[in-house]
Amino acid sequence: MNPSAAILIIGDEILSGRTKDKNSGWLAEQLNALGIQLVEARVIPDIEAVIARHVRMLSAQVDYLFTSGGIGPTHDDITTQSIARAFGVAVEQNTEAMQRLIAHYRDTDTTLNAARQKMANIPVGATLIDNPISAAPGFIMQNTYVMAGVPSILQAMFSGFAHSLVGGVPATRITVQCATGEGNIAVIMEQIGSEAGISVGSYPWFKQDQFGTDQFGTAIVVSGLDGVQTTAAARRLLVAIQHAGFEAEIEAS
Amino acid sequence: MNPSAAILIIGDEILSGRTKDKNSGWLAEQLNALGIQLVEARVIPDIEAVIARHVRMLSAQVDYLFTSGGIGPTHDDITTQSIARAFGVAVEQNTEAMQRLIAHYRDTDTTLNAARQKMANIPVGATLIDNPISAAPGFIMQNTYVMAGVPSILQAMFSGFAHSLVGGVPATRITVQCATGEGNIAVIMEQIGSEAGISVGSYPWFKQDQFGTDQFGTAIVVSGLDGVQTTAAARRLLVAIQHAGFEAEIEAS
Repeated sequence: MNPSAAILIIGDEILSGRTKDKNSGWLAEQLNALGIQLVEARVIPDIEAVIARHVRMLSAQVDYLFTSGGIGPTHDDITTQSIARAFGVAVEQNTEAMQRLIAHYRDTDTTLNAARQKMANIPVGATLIDNPISAAPGFIMQNTYVMAGVPSILQAMFSGFAHSLVGGVPATRITVQCATGEGNIAVIMEQIGSEAGISVGSYPWFKQDQFGTDQFGTAIVVSGLDGVQTTAAARRLLVAIQHAGFEAEIEAS
Repeated sequence: MNPSAAILIIGDEILSGRTKDKNSGWLAEQLNALGIQLVEARVIPDIEAVIARHVRMLSAQVDYLFTSGGIGPTHDDITTQSIARAFGVAVEQNTEAMQRLIAHYRDTDTTLNAARQKMANIPVGATLIDNPISAAPGFIMQNTYVMAGVPSILQAMFSGFAHSLVGGVPATRITVQCATGEGNIAVIMEQIGSEAGISVGSYPWFKQDQFGTDQFGTAIVVSGLDGVQTTAAARRLLVAIQHAGFEAEIEAS
């Protein structure tokens, strides 16, 4: 059984539609490559009690919880205190975090004022997550990894600790592209998808070609934890679709 | 008090990172324009019991629940039966839905086979949502709007019933762009943000200009339901930032 994970995207700007969330898609890819099964992602507002409630619920349900957003210097950055509340601990100025901020701002024309010093406040008992871009650290509280919302910083943070995550068996995923509507090959897909250990997903697509003519087809994703079995299942699916008279091919990965 | 809404994105392909969710960002914009407050968005897997549980929970918490994905003809499309389970009703072949499918496929070389007929199965008591693109309807069950996952179809479905949603007062949102780090203007933002009815969000950004030089700044979003008050607050924020010695301007909307 692979370890499980959930993602919590924290921020009013995502719920208002102003900012489009790029972090969950990126994290989903990383986790799947590590063999960690993402079971849920949630987007929630900047409200302390709401953040604390979701953190408590999700962190109890999964092996790893990853959060994004709300650890900056301004009044609307309330993730740190909300995480502390979720785990029933206090927030304190972290000496190591403060030293990193001092070193980072020392040679700039930016002052480490009261607002920026807030970024050294960390829940008691948490471990720091390195921020190679702008110094202000994230932190790990039990199984909860608290990261910045700016995608470049989140990615740098995750990449720094990814090696320390206990992963599992990455799923083998093979895409069979098929030049017909999914309704024509539903029975074939269901048959292969009913094999133990094999999952078959059907994703219809529509587009216009360069002449403005409608094109459509189905991307069929055959996945499983056993690479040999999954590859064999994908080949059987391909052959069955071709025998039924439709064009299909395995997509280069 | 504006009506509230939640979004449920249903699909393993989003959680695996294979497909990037575009529907929640699009729906977030539409809902906010209608004055409907989006309070949460969740991405969940194609598992009947899981879908039913989230639908029950979220539909009880908000005025409107919108779901995306899983109403196609294939074995992995299990949203309809899961919604029926959530509301404790049966699924039946809907006569009107069947007629729409028959009319749609009549003049094509595509047959309305058993798999496609499944798309006429609708929970008892639900109202159909028109699908002007590929006929197979979505449906409304109590306060839950069940739509396709393909973005063009979801958008067409939503646009068809949007006029029937009871909206509220759309928030006025004014963005003040500021050429300094958010830490330098945190106190000013907190002051304006503490005014009753006014919310201030701080969104730092980083980019490289054409010469490869790092640029950074802060987008400050002043929002509120009273347009006159919100505009006045944004102007006060702008003046305060300029008086503090930083470049800033109100972004054209």
